[in-house]
Amino acid sequence: MRNIRLTVAYDGTDFHGFQVQPQLRTVQGVLQEALRLITKEEALQIHGSGRTDAGVHAWGQVVNFVTRSRIPVEKWPVALNVRLPNDLVIREAFEEPLDFHARFSAKRKVYRYMIDRAPYPNVFQARYAYHVPYPLNPDRMREATAYFIGRHDFTSFCAAATPVEDKVRELYRIDFEEKDSFLSITFEGEGFLWNMVRILVGTLILVGRGRLSPDDMPAILEARDRTRAGFTAPAHGLTLWEVIYQ
Amino acid sequence: MRNIRLTVAYDGTDFHGFQVQPQLRTVQGVLQEALRLITKEEALQIHGSGRTDAGVHAWGQVVNFVTRSRIPVEKWPVALNVRLPNDLVIREAFEEPLDFHARFSAKRKVYRYMIDRAPYPNVFQARYAYHVPYPLNPDRMREATAYFIGRHDFTSFCAAATPVEDKVRELYRIDFEEKDSFLSITFEGEGFLWNMVRILVGTLILVGRGRLSPDDMPAILEARDRTRAGFTAPAHGLTLWEVIYQ
Repeated sequence: MRNIRLTVAYDGTDFHGFQVQPQLRTVQGVLQEALRLITKEEALQIHGSGRTDAGVHAWGQVVNFVTRSRIPVEKWPVALNVRLPNDLVIREAFEEPLDFHARFSAKRKVYRYMIDRAPYPNVFQARYAYHVPYPLNPDRMREATAYFIGRHDFTSFCAAATPVEDKVRELYRIDFEEKDSFLSITFEGEGFLWNMVRILVGTLILVGRGRLSPDDMPAILEARDRTRAGFTAPAHGLTLWEVIYQ
Repeated sequence: MRNIRLTVAYDGTDFHGFQVQPQLRTVQGVLQEALRLITKEEALQIHGSGRTDAGVHAWGQVVNFVTRSRIPVEKWPVALNVRLPNDLVIREAFEEPLDFHARFSAKRKVYRYMIDRAPYPNVFQARYAYHVPYPLNPDRMREATAYFIGRHDFTSFCAAATPVEDKVRELYRIDFEEKDSFLSITFEGEGFLWNMVRILVGTLILVGRGRLSPDDMPAILEARDRTRAGFTAPAHGLTLWEVIYQ
């Protein structure tokens, strides 16, 4: 048996998220079907580094699967890409020890959220950027992010229905990049709760617009109450950028 | 009567080109319908700076129309954008003298062609970049472009069915920009023949791959024979970038 790890990019627009769902087009479903066709292993299952919600994109999602197939590791991308639709592309393949697991072996994740601040949405980025046609002050937003770096209980910044108990996560960095009308915010952390990046972004947008102050952040974190933070920014601005192992 | 000029961006993927065609979704058709709804002028007609073929995009297409409407010029973009689909956006509006015509008043046009040289297509640019997974030598391509700059008969570099008689055009510049896996080629000229940019790009790709030499260009130009130049690069890599009216 061999354990194959793939780096997967997808445009999430036309997928109902990552996880397999009956009758719906999902990343895991489409990828698993292609792999079963190639390997003729009907029970073949892929493991993702994590689910992405409907509409969320990926540049560096990571999946692994265990197979009896003897296809050389460097042939996997092309073998899969000829069978996959245009909105799902395998970028790389590696062979890993049998104990490697895309989710449990992951050490850090990087997400990127893109905001388009032009007066009207850029047609070429409309699928990948959230259009915010209001003045945003990036200095205020940067100031607010200082309160999120480090180890915090992010209960206020995750969906109220989040199933996990422990809501303490460590954030390593939040970087801003401005280019033309776009503002990209990159988050690197040990892991993220459900909707966490989107709620952080929704809150930072309120700070950028002057509806919240950077100094409001400590009280919102301490409240451990979802209703205290900002809105959930839409899925289509979010991209799972990279998953870091070891 | 007032003459309104609009700067229009569109993702050409889901349009059957610019020009109105019965039963088909075209840029002119969708835009004219929105304008007729707003102005209630059934005969309202828009003039484009030129047609773009099916699948070709625009960042700075220019159109004009004459109307009795008293909507202030700065209100036109928002009035239209709320009615237009996501793949067609009005970026700017200006009022022009009555003798302004988007096509006849144009002095120069700028087109951009984007090539993706990654081993597998970038999912986020798959609609806007032509995927060429072969090594391309940009220095050879640049060398070839030197033969195109200036005033030439481009009969070899336009569709054989091109209806115009005079195939002499002046090219002012051809610039290359490399970023990540992308190679963008920008063409600025007084005007372009049917498929001219796409055939120039197809020919430059053959030069970049070593199938043609830069020094073959003068003979191809002199032959005035479409079959001597390279293939017509696909529409989806091409964007009408800007129309210049001094």
